[in-house]
Amino acid sequence: MGNFFFQKDIISIRDLDREKFDTIFNATDKIIAMSPNERRELARGKTLGYLFFEPSTRTRLSFEAAMASLGGTSIGIADALSSSTKKGESLADTVRIMSLYSDVLVLRHQLDGSSRFAAEVSAKPLINAGSGTEEHPTQAILDLYTIRKEKKKIDGLKIGVVGDLKYGRTVYSLLYALGNYKVDVHLISPPALKIRADSTYEIQKRLPFKESTDLEENLDEFDVLYVTRIQKERFADAEEYAKVKGSYKIGLDMLKKMKDDAIIMHPLPRLDEISPEVDSTPYAKYFTQAQYGKDTRAALLALILNEKGI
Amino acid sequence: MGNFFFQKDIISIRDLDREKFDTIFNATDKIIAMSPNERRELARGKTLGYLFFEPSTRTRLSFEAAMASLGGTSIGIADALSSSTKKGESLADTVRIMSLYSDVLVLRHQLDGSSRFAAEVSAKPLINAGSGTEEHPTQAILDLYTIRKEKKKIDGLKIGVVGDLKYGRTVYSLLYALGNYKVDVHLISPPALKIRADSTYEIQKRLPFKESTDLEENLDEFDVLYVTRIQKERFADAEEYAKVKGSYKIGLDMLKKMKDDAIIMHPLPRLDEISPEVDSTPYAKYFTQAQYGKDTRAALLALILNEKGI
Amino acid sequence: MGNFFFQKDIISIRDLDREKFDTIFNATDKIIAMSPNERRELARGKTLGYLFFEPSTRTRLSFEAAMASLGGTSIGIADALSSSTKKGESLADTVRIMSLYSDVLVLRHQLDGSSRFAAEVSAKPLINAGSGTEEHPTQAILDLYTIRKEKKKIDGLKIGVVGDLKYGRTVYSLLYALGNYKVDVHLISPPALKIRADSTYEIQKRLPFKESTDLEENLDEFDVLYVTRIQKERFADAEEYAKVKGSYKIGLDMLKKMKDDAIIMHPLPRLDEISPEVDSTPYAKYFTQAQYGKDTRAALLALILNEKGI
Repeated sequence: MGNFFFQKDIISIRDLDREKFDTIFNATDKIIAMSPNERRELARGKTLGYLFFEPSTRTRLSFEAAMASLGGTSIGIADALSSSTKKGESLADTVRIMSLYSDVLVLRHQLDGSSRFAAEVSAKPLINAGSGTEEHPTQAILDLYTIRKEKKKIDGLKIGVVGDLKYGRTVYSLLYALGNYKVDVHLISPPALKIRADSTYEIQKRLPFKESTDLEENLDEFDVLYVTRIQKERFADAEEYAKVKGSYKIGLDMLKKMKDDAIIMHPLPRLDEISPEVDSTPYAKYFTQAQYGKDTRAALLALILNEKGI
Repeated sequence: MGNFFFQKDIISIRDLDREKFDTIFNATDKIIAMSPNERRELARGKTLGYLFFEPSTRTRLSFEAAMASLGGTSIGIADALSSSTKKGESLADTVRIMSLYSDVLVLRHQLDGSSRFAAEVSAKPLINAGSGTEEHPTQAILDLYTIRKEKKKIDGLKIGVVGDLKYGRTVYSLLYALGNYKVDVHLISPPALKIRADSTYEIQKRLPFKESTDLEENLDEFDVLYVTRIQKERFADAEEYAKVKGSYKIGLDMLKKMKDDAIIMHPLPRLDEISPEVDSTPYAKYFTQAQYGKDTRAALLALILNEKGI
Repeated sequence: MGNFFFQKDIISIRDLDREKFDTIFNATDKIIAMSPNERRELARGKTLGYLFFEPSTRTRLSFEAAMASLGGTSIGIADALSSSTKKGESLADTVRIMSLYSDVLVLRHQLDGSSRFAAEVSAKPLINAGSGTEEHPTQAILDLYTIRKEKKKIDGLKIGVVGDLKYGRTVYSLLYALGNYKVDVHLISPPALKIRADSTYEIQKRLPFKESTDLEENLDEFDVLYVTRIQKERFADAEEYAKVKGSYKIGLDMLKKMKDDAIIMHPLPRLDEISPEVDSTPYAKYFTQAQYGKDTRAALLALILNEKGI
């Protein structure tokens, strides 16, 4: 009997549930434990084709590193918006042709629904590497894996999510994913960067969360503090930005108020939301998280490409 | 005894004849039939170096995918015009150095004769991936292979070529290639985009062809309809463009006038010369053609890199 | 006992001495003598991550070709300045994350000290592929190797270095490297492009060199003539540039004045400092030098990645 993910698309975090997450997590554990020689048999001679209509060097390299660790090759277009559409080709044709050259496709696109549409025309399984305003399923998977690995569980945790909750697709995907677990979620953001009510209507049904603007207020309760970037461009007023930026900055002083075994996560890149002094403390898990990004993506690729799983 | 293509350059479609085409076609058939494990031994540990002085994402990725399927690696410069000549280096030096880093070179360049010149200074065999106004030998090879594979023969076919026949190097290479076969060729284009008389003088000697402006007139006779892009930039007058564009568009209505077993080809990318509804009909062979592009290039690379052929 | 370079950084040419150079040279000899099958086991399944904050297509491709010849994969950012810092990420974070995706890092950066700093935050060994005004250790290594290989020795040679000695980091690294040998060095440049006195203070202690402005004066004495590019941008006055350019140009006439067994080197790319007619003479070793660049980098990578050396 084949594994569930064999030749499947990964389009939306909403298509996955606890059981499917467990399959990916267990595969990731195995990938990490494997010898390099075993690992590089999992995609030997296979080709990953990527199409990035939005630049995302980090996500792209994470997939390329994952594919290389499995013994496979990556080819593709890092700036598909300029190179492909320059000749006026439709997304459907670009995806179709790329899928003829590859064994699995990775797509990043600015439009909601682009991945679902692309998967329909693709001749090969397609992984959504970020689309539209809400979907970044592989980021949510690596976030969950990081929590599970570093806290040994997900259920029962108190999780603070802080920063720009309005514009980051990462946060929406994470909240959808967390809806599968019994967690206590607290969202902290400046009023102008609150999570969008229309998007969270569905999330709220499964994952009731609290909202506030003051980070320090509940800081001593969190098991996980998930920090996101606040971008200057989001503010009309420079003073407003400066104020917000300062109040959400995690430095050594903040750590003293946190639980001893709390962890700090960040999807990266960071600006100065987290002070560099924090990096060498046991709280800091954002680089570990980036490494798990490679590992979880390797696991996903291995499951998609190998009928018997790993 | 080595195979003919071992360590040979592929510069011009005019250097090839029926026998050489057959060698490539047979090698392609074998490549397609091979197991992935066998295939990836054919260029294992070998490096393809590419130099694209004109952007051509599709052709480049086709070569990269072909090389990966043979177990090899691709490195190179996708925008050689900006990166290499920025420092004022000559084409000869760029080619020479790239050839020291690779086992086989792939060159795309806007100038006629560039490939012949580059092959002379290269330390390794060189494949012309499009040069000047007329030469794109690997495109012509994949076009012939598609016809042969889908129609089971080339001799005796009636082939319509429609669209911009003046500016597309693809068409010139295809006509030179077809000159090796007994085919009945009909060129259909608006008067302003007729094939260049000076270029076809030589073609005409071996391949007498008819010319007209009306696509529908002979549509019911063609075994193969080869459609090319008509670019807006070629027209001084927007109205003229709109008229031409409309009259050469292949939609479901056109298909009804075609032979039941006719095939439609296109070098891609397409704009709206072929309506998307056509894609799912048995006439549509342009995506299959793109896939054969990868396969024929893999065969060519394998022949060039392996003395005993495949 | 492991080899010295296993898991070590290569930051500065000043960290290396004759013994270490010999280790690399011997490894390079072995790499060249190896069968492709043996060679491609040396980095099988390993990933090189590159970060180029300054464009350098040639150096990057040389590393990629070296890694491919060892059976490894390369991933990275060719224009890190635009892609990474666009999101405001620090060099430290970019390096850290890249090092989580790779087994060895290659960094090119415009700032002095960048490599040393990056090596400290990197989770994997780091090779400096050019930094700041003076350091380009792998270029110096390939230069030394070329001299040793083509002249069968380094000690006792008379070496002329001509061109822009002020702005080329290649020259500083070469002089530091030559400081380990008993060589007679003569620097020839226009007054405006003389080597910087503050940088050579330390070099002078170990490698006393002569300076002059006239190339032809001592041309008959050199065993090695190392030519570098003179860039127009360095001159305020176009006439001054034209004069200088002409007087340092190596053509067939110059060769007649040289020792019969002298060799001409150049880090490439060249403009017209060396006339193309020179290329086919036995003096010309600059393309051979580029090839050794790939070989010495392969040797270095193999030593860094394999505990037992090669």
